[in-house]
Amino acid sequence: MQTDAFHVFDTTLRDGAQREGITYSVADKLAVARLLDQLGVGFIEGGWPGAMPKDTDFFARAADGELALKNAVLVAFGATRKAGVRVEDDAQVQALLDSRASVITLVAKSSVWHVEQALRTTREENLAMVRDTVAFLVAEGRRVFVDCEHFFDGYALDRDYGVRLLDVAAAAGADVGVLCDTNGGMLPMGVHDVVTDVASRAGIRLGIHTQDDTGCAVANTLAAVDAGATHAQGTANGYGERAGNANIFSVIGGLVLKMGRDVLPDGCLAEMQRISHAIAEIANLAQDTHAPYVGAAAFAHKAGLHASAIKVAPLMYNHLDPEVVGNRQRILVTEMAGRASVELKARELGIELADRPDVVSAVVEIVKEREAAGWSYESADASFELLIRDQLDPDAVAPFTVESYRVISEDEGSAEARVKLAVGERKVIAIREGNGPVNALDRALRRALRRDYPQLRGLQLTDYKVRIMPGAQGTEAVTRVLIETTNGEREWTTVGVHASVIEASWLALHDAVRYGLL
Amino acid sequence: MQTDAFHVFDTTLRDGAQREGITYSVADKLAVARLLDQLGVGFIEGGWPGAMPKDTDFFARAADGELALKNAVLVAFGATRKAGVRVEDDAQVQALLDSRASVITLVAKSSVWHVEQALRTTREENLAMVRDTVAFLVAEGRRVFVDCEHFFDGYALDRDYGVRLLDVAAAAGADVGVLCDTNGGMLPMGVHDVVTDVASRAGIRLGIHTQDDTGCAVANTLAAVDAGATHAQGTANGYGERAGNANIFSVIGGLVLKMGRDVLPDGCLAEMQRISHAIAEIANLAQDTHAPYVGAAAFAHKAGLHASAIKVAPLMYNHLDPEVVGNRQRILVTEMAGRASVELKARELGIELADRPDVVSAVVEIVKEREAAGWSYESADASFELLIRDQLDPDAVAPFTVESYRVISEDEGSAEARVKLAVGERKVIAIREGNGPVNALDRALRRALRRDYPQLRGLQLTDYKVRIMPGAQGTEAVTRVLIETTNGEREWTTVGVHASVIEASWLALHDAVRYGLL
Repeated sequence: MQTDAFHVFDTTLRDGAQREGITYSVADKLAVARLLDQLGVGFIEGGWPGAMPKDTDFFARAADGELALKNAVLVAFGATRKAGVRVEDDAQVQALLDSRASVITLVAKSSVWHVEQALRTTREENLAMVRDTVAFLVAEGRRVFVDCEHFFDGYALDRDYGVRLLDVAAAAGADVGVLCDTNGGMLPMGVHDVVTDVASRAGIRLGIHTQDDTGCAVANTLAAVDAGATHAQGTANGYGERAGNANIFSVIGGLVLKMGRDVLPDGCLAEMQRISHAIAEIANLAQDTHAPYVGAAAFAHKAGLHASAIKVAPLMYNHLDPEVVGNRQRILVTEMAGRASVELKARELGIELADRPDVVSAVVEIVKEREAAGWSYESADASFELLIRDQLDPDAVAPFTVESYRVISEDEGSAEARVKLAVGERKVIAIREGNGPVNALDRALRRALRRDYPQLRGLQLTDYKVRIMPGAQGTEAVTRVLIETTNGEREWTTVGVHASVIEASWLALHDAVRYGLL
Repeated sequence: MQTDAFHVFDTTLRDGAQREGITYSVADKLAVARLLDQLGVGFIEGGWPGAMPKDTDFFARAADGELALKNAVLVAFGATRKAGVRVEDDAQVQALLDSRASVITLVAKSSVWHVEQALRTTREENLAMVRDTVAFLVAEGRRVFVDCEHFFDGYALDRDYGVRLLDVAAAAGADVGVLCDTNGGMLPMGVHDVVTDVASRAGIRLGIHTQDDTGCAVANTLAAVDAGATHAQGTANGYGERAGNANIFSVIGGLVLKMGRDVLPDGCLAEMQRISHAIAEIANLAQDTHAPYVGAAAFAHKAGLHASAIKVAPLMYNHLDPEVVGNRQRILVTEMAGRASVELKARELGIELADRPDVVSAVVEIVKEREAAGWSYESADASFELLIRDQLDPDAVAPFTVESYRVISEDEGSAEARVKLAVGERKVIAIREGNGPVNALDRALRRALRRDYPQLRGLQLTDYKVRIMPGAQGTEAVTRVLIETTNGEREWTTVGVHASVIEASWLALHDAVRYGLL
């Protein structure tokens, strides 16, 4: 568990989910929460139970034991009681208790303009809403943080109202008052001034929540910490509404590596790059290759000038050693995988290639060629392992040969697949229907192999991701399919790439089944 | 022409071209320079003549009249003379003169570590290289700026050497000393302190050049200006090596809209969004949809909470009026949204629903139901518009009826589709092959409609995105397909959801074509 001295507070699953294009299932949310816990954040804001059925479900499943967090505490987000309603009678406040989260973030309006024009209530009633709701939740044994929405814009209109609200929250038992730059219009100099002033006047621990509308969300967060805030909110990869939230990886990088604040448990910093990529995969968004610290290009050098200086001393053109954040330096002249990384990766998969330089060369060549054609082995370890094993011994993992397949898809989604294989000396044909072409192909393939490989019955396709990769200059776009398969004990991911989504799916299915036979 | 009071200095074509994936032709460079001139920057650094043949050519064509700049001055970038070489004999310095650029940026090492270890010369010789080269170019009638590479890292090692270098440059006739955070490791607080100190000691106008390795490039630039710098460098869309350079659109936004510096000619600010997109097109990179100020999502709202407040006053959840930077607000229709956002979204699409509460209710119900089943309209405006129009008048946008389709996919990706339609009283059948099932269906559908709707010939499918949505509890996973179509003038996105990837693609294709007929 994290100490309480500094709060790294993640809101990927709540505020970050406002980003255009993101729709998490409950299973996605659980997976993201596990990754954030591995990152070592202290708090994971999981959603708004009571307002969103999916979030209610997420908290229920978490409380029922599906999330075993080792670093983080799960936080539920919600609003204060409605104006003119007794807090005991407010169904949404009750839903916060029902979520069983031990920490609650309450959002409160702290700008007089929003209190009067959006909430259409009085300044005093707004303060009473905060007081009553905080006190009620604290009496029920919850720890309460208060998100002060539009704090900075409100401060510009009335520099005292927000401070009064913070004092009311503190008196009612809240632990942290989070100053929110909800519209994201601030610059670091202004944030520093406001936080310095508020810290000198308000009797509560201060937090900071920023949005990136001026491109300064990370800097604003760090400026607030420099001015006294000890609770910093952010989201993985900066996901969030409009220009996004403060990118928590950049915030952590700045705090730990630039400001010397030891805010993560030991060993966690080197997980940043992996976790950033994994969360992007779950969100089904392309990773920003140029993201600070964690992007694939964050330590990539193109300039000949720089590359030669880097030979002298790597830190001449890098602000830190990439391995500290789990990333690596890349020189872009020879862009793709090198021999060293193939060897290292093979070792990770339990295959020693030190005495097989011929295999390393062959794999490097194939990977280069395929990556140029849109393949990516980064998230498809199983396909990569098959690639190496095929080079080591072409017969080892080819227990069957595909002669042909055909799949017919008709309206309403019905599909029928026919697969012809050679298993040893025997020809096998299988025909199966499915609720779509990939399902039909999967079923036909496994049916054809059932007699020889009964263990395939336990295999299940658990995820299927498709992305269109723009072709290299002048060539067609191709479809990249990632398939995740489980045998009940472990999961593996395979990849297929082709102009046709069906052929790409078939290639990934083929690898998935071959890997299952290993 | 810009006044000289503040320099907005663009280096998209020089430092920005270091970004992975960017390769400009000379024609591309001329086109980018024209766009930057329309943006109203004062200086356009065009490249390194003498070091890169393409850049030499670019300056020659610019000087021969192919660039008629109305706001900006073209700048050539180069290095000081080599150690131990007379400046008159240095071929690269001569190439700077030959470029005919009236302004020259000279890069000089200002960190003692780099002087001694990378340049392998003495501190005094390095100063002499700056002195000689600046004096030589000034005597030839050029205006000279000096880029002080690694200034901030150098300051940490020796806080006087960089200042001495600035004084040498000034004495030799240089106009600006640009403090470069070459490795991008700074935070705004540190930048502010260093620039404040240097401004009090060095007798030269100061500029700032930052890189985004801490996610603070924009903030660092603005902090330097706050501390006294009056020359700010940046690149379009933040292009540059590693995590990139300071994004010039965000820098301009911060300077003009947040710090009240009037750094662009009248009318130019509203061109930012257009120019950002146009340069991304030339660079052949997808626009960052979440970029501050200029991204397509920079003013996009998803939360129902926010949408209802925005009906009250648009500035409640925007830090500025999007039109100021040529952008627009967008409401994303999602499960989080209610009646208010449907009404706002319809208005955005040019449909007034204020007097049709029945249609609003019906649309809200359908959206809720479909989103629960895995649909998402937030990036599929065209499908959402069809949904509303179908509710307003079921016959308005149904110029044909689908009777059936069938698509056969075989190994190696070959595919053949058959589509049966009723167009008015007539039955039409079309059969087409494609390089995959979706391509075959798209071609067959448009073939079937060609006689009645010849305008469909110009339609082209430009993007195809697929995501698997895990089903709600107990139900099957479904596939969501987003299709982007263009008619050469505009683009639209449609959505289809089904267990079968083919049926989902078909639904999205169907909407894409219907929308094309609107």
